[in-house]
Amino acid sequence: MTDDCIFCKIIDGEIPSHKIYEDENIIAILDANPVSKGHTLVIPKKHVETIHEAGGMNFLHEGLVNVSNALEKAFNPDGINIAQNNGEKAGQEVFHLHFHVTPIYEGNELDVTYNRGDLEEAEKTVEEIKQKL
Amino acid sequence: MTDDCIFCKIIDGEIPSHKIYEDENIIAILDANPVSKGHTLVIPKKHVETIHEAGGMNFLHEGLVNVSNALEKAFNPDGINIAQNNGEKAGQEVFHLHFHVTPIYEGNELDVTYNRGDLEEAEKTVEEIKQKL
Repeated sequence: MTDDCIFCKIIDGEIPSHKIYEDENIIAILDANPVSKGHTLVIPKKHVETIHEAGGMNFLHEGLVNVSNALEKAFNPDGINIAQNNGEKAGQEVFHLHFHVTPIYEGNELDVTYNRGDLEEAEKTVEEIKQKL
Repeated sequence: MTDDCIFCKIIDGEIPSHKIYEDENIIAILDANPVSKGHTLVIPKKHVETIHEAGGMNFLHEGLVNVSNALEKAFNPDGINIAQNNGEKAGQEVFHLHFHVTPIYEGNELDVTYNRGDLEEAEKTVEEIKQKL
């Protein structure tokens, strides 16, 4: 637990939440500021900030599948978005790793716009990444 | 392999791609229409359409971590977005499950807008989901 982390406080029971699921590794709660009915967060209990520290947390995938399936059965949405943001510039607001699972309904679709950066040839990009894998 | 699936054809080597990583379970390739430098797709080799069929594919999480770490080291972006879309209304374009791993750089941040739907009280929503878990 990290003293100033709102998600650690929720996991620890210090702050109330709308809990959907909990096991030894994860908690799933409704987003406190939902963008659609059933907007859920899947959160590892261990405090890590970003995906870069999430090695060994493969159980998160199982959480995403189970929550997505439950949302599908409960609300029959027209689609589901899964999103996970790392860094303030990428839209991260709480610095404890979490995945958004957001049901999409006709009429309240997600509108995503990327401001495209300059792009160089793909071959060079691939080589630069491969060197770091 | 599914005959009319572009990702199955890429995995099978029938269609060229900019491949970053491959193992027995996954392939990681550059997005053919990248929104930023290093925009990568993490794709299971087994053809499944959506997250709902992705039970048992926990290795996808490890792929997300490894690709994110390589992108971080290669390009030092200001953030990274991970996104996975299920259903046409949720923005899915290729109906073979895939996660986008998108480096975010200052000046080409992601702009996400949700058209919020009507929301009822959270307690009711929680109960409806829990019944399906």
